[in-house]
Amino acid sequence: MEKQKPIILTGDRPTGSLHLGHYVGSLKNRVEMQNDYKQFVLIADMQALTDNAENPGKVCDNVFEVTMDYLAVGIDPRKTNIVLQSKLHDIAELFMIYSNLVSVARVERNPTVKQEIKQKGLERELPLGFFSYPVSQAADITAFKASFVPVGQDQLPMIEISNEIVRRFNRVYNCDVLKECQAVVPKVGRLPGVDGKAKMSKSLGNAIYLKSTEKEIEQAVKMMFTDPTHLRVEDPGNIEGNVVFAYLDAFDPDVKAIEELKAQYQRGGLGDGVVKKRLREVLQELIAPIRAERSRLEKDRGEVARVIRAGTEAAQETVAETLQEVKAAMGIDYKAIW
Amino acid sequence: MEKQKPIILTGDRPTGSLHLGHYVGSLKNRVEMQNDYKQFVLIADMQALTDNAENPGKVCDNVFEVTMDYLAVGIDPRKTNIVLQSKLHDIAELFMIYSNLVSVARVERNPTVKQEIKQKGLERELPLGFFSYPVSQAADITAFKASFVPVGQDQLPMIEISNEIVRRFNRVYNCDVLKECQAVVPKVGRLPGVDGKAKMSKSLGNAIYLKSTEKEIEQAVKMMFTDPTHLRVEDPGNIEGNVVFAYLDAFDPDVKAIEELKAQYQRGGLGDGVVKKRLREVLQELIAPIRAERSRLEKDRGEVARVIRAGTEAAQETVAETLQEVKAAMGIDYKAIW
Repeated sequence: MEKQKPIILTGDRPTGSLHLGHYVGSLKNRVEMQNDYKQFVLIADMQALTDNAENPGKVCDNVFEVTMDYLAVGIDPRKTNIVLQSKLHDIAELFMIYSNLVSVARVERNPTVKQEIKQKGLERELPLGFFSYPVSQAADITAFKASFVPVGQDQLPMIEISNEIVRRFNRVYNCDVLKECQAVVPKVGRLPGVDGKAKMSKSLGNAIYLKSTEKEIEQAVKMMFTDPTHLRVEDPGNIEGNVVFAYLDAFDPDVKAIEELKAQYQRGGLGDGVVKKRLREVLQELIAPIRAERSRLEKDRGEVARVIRAGTEAAQETVAETLQEVKAAMGIDYKAIW
Repeated sequence: MEKQKPIILTGDRPTGSLHLGHYVGSLKNRVEMQNDYKQFVLIADMQALTDNAENPGKVCDNVFEVTMDYLAVGIDPRKTNIVLQSKLHDIAELFMIYSNLVSVARVERNPTVKQEIKQKGLERELPLGFFSYPVSQAADITAFKASFVPVGQDQLPMIEISNEIVRRFNRVYNCDVLKECQAVVPKVGRLPGVDGKAKMSKSLGNAIYLKSTEKEIEQAVKMMFTDPTHLRVEDPGNIEGNVVFAYLDAFDPDVKAIEELKAQYQRGGLGDGVVKKRLREVLQELIAPIRAERSRLEKDRGEVARVIRAGTEAAQETVAETLQEVKAAMGIDYKAIW
């Protein structure tokens, strides 16, 4: 009999195709983790709607986009459940139940929510759903009984709220139905944007997508930020803040060769063109098979749909079980009626 | 073929047995309305939990209590669906969807929520679920496609928020799936407590319950607040603020006789004892058959359970249909997948 693997929950808001930043920050890990964990990858469409209520079409379209990205990078539906959040209605109930165990003041104190509100300029007309999403995330995490949740440093306060809810629930209902989870902050650094900004992001328009064409990759590398003071080949160049080297570090497996290139660049005598050529080849090699698999899937949406359906249906069982345990612990399962 | 009756939604938080205040304020109307409307009576256990999270046992027990009260006063399960809220998981989803269409600021401005927060002393550690309940109520109302919702004057701002959500939803998703409802404020006045306080309420401890024993009724009438300045039979007495007359107005069908009694009381020459005797008889007559039916039901909890189950299952269909229409209007029904 197979040993029970620990459960890990990851996911994305489906608001755009995934890019190299996602690849480095999470997708690559997921492809590895699916061997050691029981992995659920949640396509958080309900959460995406909390700040995209006026544009549900975007969210829906990106459910397919994101799933194709997942499959194309090697997330294997035989090992990983790809799950569509809006089809897990039991999570909505968990959310309502947990909402009674968290104060408005506690949510307000959450620094991640504070910052996002500021970033999105939502101060005045912040949707209640967006405000409440830490609690909805706690519902996700606990619904799957996740032991591990990979998150960025900035999302740690979310995990804190979730674990607080777990402790409060178990204390109030004198049980141990819910389990605290452990945040896993990936060791890999954040991938900068092609423009040198600290973060690759769709909204900043500085991303290389997993579905990029050869030409788009070439173009992106060509325009890529290097060292603006490195004007002549013979001049010494800076590698800090130099996006080309950051990407080589992230994607070129030949660490030794890269170290030599870096030394030469810093000494002087190595032009941006040469380094960019190497990066271009590395990226083309990385993305070519992803693009190929993705375009195969584009032509077989039925397969993509089947993957989502199967992953979601398997998750529904897990989540239904959790909700049932939660209601039983609270004594609101109405056994005398149903 | 039966003409489609307009839908009316009423309900209670199951936090205690129902009393004469409920009878006058809503139950009596419901017994009449079930002939002219398609009536859903919602036992709002999820909503009761928003400020009773630490005591779900109380809520559960009162689901049976309240249902027995309903049946005992003449709410007829062949005409009215008695519905248990927590079994309508689609309402939780509607709630999440609507939460994205209402701002935190808008909920904060709601005067009913403000007042209840104050009453319950929840200012600082207000549960998020309690804060959000106007949106949850909008989910209830729209889920049933209710045209009419009987509410007290103080609940009118709730109906306002619900209709705002309806208009916002239809505008944002360019549809007419949701319908605004009309608040119905019953003409009957509020029944004072036996102690003369303006409102009969469980928490004030001044209520006469529908399940009262003969002795409890007798006791309640005996202690009932009349006119504290009316010391001798021959003195003129006040009928304003006099609970005995308020109850006679509410429950004695012989309006003419009551008018005569009032005149005599005001002139002087009518003792409290005589008026109280009349009220005692009226209340005993009113409550005796309710108590009898209730005690029959106490012995047949299976029947009560069947009523709740049947009413809830019928409601589930209505609510599921609404959720499906809502998701279709938003384009998040994922027809390509399911």
